[in-house]
Amino acid sequence: MSPPRLALVPGEPAGIGPELCVRLAQQPRGDCSLVAFGDGDTLVAAARALSLPLQLLPADAVATRPGDLPLHAIPNAVAVEFGRADPRNARAVIAALETAARACLDGAFDGLVTGPVHKAAINDGGIAYTGTTELLARQAGCDVVMMLANAIVRVALATTHLPLRDVPDAINADSLARTLRIVDAALRTRFGIVAPRIAVLGLNPHAGEDGHMGREELDVIAPVIAALRAQGLHLEGPLPADTAFLPAKLRDVDAVLAMYHDQGLPVLKYSGFESAVNLTLGLPYPRVAVDHGTALSIAGRGIADPSSLFAAVDTCARMARKAVAA
Amino acid sequence: MSPPRLALVPGEPAGIGPELCVRLAQQPRGDCSLVAFGDGDTLVAAARALSLPLQLLPADAVATRPGDLPLHAIPNAVAVEFGRADPRNARAVIAALETAARACLDGAFDGLVTGPVHKAAINDGGIAYTGTTELLARQAGCDVVMMLANAIVRVALATTHLPLRDVPDAINADSLARTLRIVDAALRTRFGIVAPRIAVLGLNPHAGEDGHMGREELDVIAPVIAALRAQGLHLEGPLPADTAFLPAKLRDVDAVLAMYHDQGLPVLKYSGFESAVNLTLGLPYPRVAVDHGTALSIAGRGIADPSSLFAAVDTCARMARKAVAA
Repeated sequence: MSPPRLALVPGEPAGIGPELCVRLAQQPRGDCSLVAFGDGDTLVAAARALSLPLQLLPADAVATRPGDLPLHAIPNAVAVEFGRADPRNARAVIAALETAARACLDGAFDGLVTGPVHKAAINDGGIAYTGTTELLARQAGCDVVMMLANAIVRVALATTHLPLRDVPDAINADSLARTLRIVDAALRTRFGIVAPRIAVLGLNPHAGEDGHMGREELDVIAPVIAALRAQGLHLEGPLPADTAFLPAKLRDVDAVLAMYHDQGLPVLKYSGFESAVNLTLGLPYPRVAVDHGTALSIAGRGIADPSSLFAAVDTCARMARKAVAA
Repeated sequence: MSPPRLALVPGEPAGIGPELCVRLAQQPRGDCSLVAFGDGDTLVAAARALSLPLQLLPADAVATRPGDLPLHAIPNAVAVEFGRADPRNARAVIAALETAARACLDGAFDGLVTGPVHKAAINDGGIAYTGTTELLARQAGCDVVMMLANAIVRVALATTHLPLRDVPDAINADSLARTLRIVDAALRTRFGIVAPRIAVLGLNPHAGEDGHMGREELDVIAPVIAALRAQGLHLEGPLPADTAFLPAKLRDVDAVLAMYHDQGLPVLKYSGFESAVNLTLGLPYPRVAVDHGTALSIAGRGIADPSSLFAAVDTCARMARKAVAA
């Protein structure tokens, strides 16, 4: 079996994405082959800024030397100035994402790794964009779940980027069951966990304390857990969020499903931000993104920490191999 | 200056509170003198269950030997059976709390340390009770703030035990400013921090992203921060909750104000549950409670971890000395 082919999208050209890809190219890997989708001149400029070797190769070539990087070229509209996101390059950023994802959907690639994009620059470029997760879900025509993971814990989210006051009504039995099925299936097929154990948090403090602090646990969450347990899923909950993340409890589960963003992500970032990655579950291919932003203020200076991108490639390669094996 | 006198309330007699107090009495302390408020027979039974010495002394006596414990007796209605909370003792539990707190208000004691109580048993005993924090606030007639602390971080809460859907409307400019003033004052007078730095979280994910994900940051939180900064408080924010807890950021602040329970407490419990304590700020005296429940299932067996009660006494003694010095 040949190693999986991963499509690599640097993201916002003026941010730290291109230089992280250049650093990634310094060590040819045995566990996967990487092809960048983006603007060649930007990658060359990033390599020059970091005084690192870079040889851009045709997309079907194989990297063998430090600095080799096969490229599917998607040119920018204007030359990049690191640190200054230019909305005129928004279309190229989106085209790179869509082209790479399409190549995964078509089976030409086994997984997608993406760097950070700059939401405001894309919107200012006249493109309606709420997030890459949403873009990929729409393109593939399927429901997806956002999961953040580091070496300590995997946290999936029942809702993602919603105002807090919209969260309670966004959680219903259908969406919650769909989310849990996607997480369970991904842990089986992408992570090779035979019988994944998922801790499901409550929505309210103390998981509602038997209805004394909110009824969503009794009315929605507990019934969904019971129904899916009857179908063989290994679910615990609804659990109080504050104690569900105790280290001893995390050791007994394969993932935590948080009901909303700020309930699940503080512990994840506290316990290992540098190596954290952002996964999109439910797509026909594994997609892993870095868990940090474009860091415009330090772009092109060679001081950006590449740990998250390295972890994203490691994770995506592992997931792609599992999927190939499955 | 003589060491501060602390009132110690074991809490639910059938839980682990009494045995933790017995363990506390095994090492007479130099930094404070402790007087228990509660049922003597229960403490004796706990000592017997743990095979530890216990000599109950008059409330005005001084502990000198291992096992010495001065007692202000508040007898239970019925004999305790460890592991089984009896609503008939609810009145004695509440009387112990109120008597000890009254002694602090009257200046006879310099601080209050409390063990875990059993909310359902108190309510079943016919007493309207939502929490000890609320009981003490009502008795003292003042606004209070709940803060959880361990060796890593102090987290204060803008709202405490509310259903999630009631949180957004519970946060208004007046209550938020009052809360921040109480936290700032407590850090100065009780912790001896000359210019406390407080990180104020946003309500929405990413602190609302400039109004794209909720407007409470723009409409309420940021204006309060600006107004209090103008009065000399050192406030940062509104900050995104997920990155505000990064270890490097926590090192630069003296406390974090979270907008609600599950936004602030998961990291606190993850990063050091055993030594975490629960503080009530804003009272005329320092009050520190354990950060765990009654643990009925292991009560009387001598296996309960006393770290949180020990940390509560340490913290309260330190806070009382600061207040005496101020």
